[in-house]
Amino acid sequence: MTTLDVAQQYVSLCKQGKNAECLDKLYDKDAVSVEAVSPPSGEDRIASGLAAIREKGKSWGENNTVHKAEVAGPYPNEDRFAVRFVYDITNKPSGQRITMDEVGLFTVKNGKITREEFFYTGG
Amino acid sequence: MTTLDVAQQYVSLCKQGKNAECLDKLYDKDAVSVEAVSPPSGEDRIASGLAAIREKGKSWGENNTVHKAEVAGPYPNEDRFAVRFVYDITNKPSGQRITMDEVGLFTVKNGKITREEFFYTGG
Repeated sequence: MTTLDVAQQYVSLCKQGKNAECLDKLYDKDAVSVEAVSPPSGEDRIASGLAAIREKGKSWGENNTVHKAEVAGPYPNEDRFAVRFVYDITNKPSGQRITMDEVGLFTVKNGKITREEFFYTGG
Repeated sequence: MTTLDVAQQYVSLCKQGKNAECLDKLYDKDAVSVEAVSPPSGEDRIASGLAAIREKGKSWGENNTVHKAEVAGPYPNEDRFAVRFVYDITNKPSGQRITMDEVGLFTVKNGKITREEFFYTGG
């Protein structure tokens, strides 16, 4: 798959809320996930390997209720693509409803996502 | 200046349409500008050095009428920040009115922007 194919599938799956399927289908097993800042939950800023990224996604899903998700893109440039996310969520532990407004930057090698980096203003 | 200071000044100046002032104030003299694809005008995809970036901006300004500009961000992550641009423009040579929807990714070193990369779907 080309980077654009991967990018379009990524956005399509995210728009359907199939984020776990993204990981199964599109990610390299050694992929790395980098947050802008360390999460308030005390987790690491960087998750290395697909198992760690899956765990991060699972934990996020358990801790947040998504009311509305907007996913815009992809915005490609050679072997990378950007995606914009605007999520209206309630954080379950705190009960706080917030808007999560982020840019994701994805690097593709040999048809698989090897790196995802999220850009946002830290709490 | 921190990366966040540079990022906030960049977005503030862009929102005021002061893009040339951005270059004077915030860019390193050896900064590099990378487009997603080669421009239809036949210019290089990569402009190296502030003089070349200034020339690119000047040429773009001469060839496009901006009806509306939306600039969202900045979205920081360590020494980089992302910005989203949605421009409603008319290309003067073709007379075509289009929406330019892009993500810019900026790298900051020693308080100056050393690299800008634009992500979008090529014509």
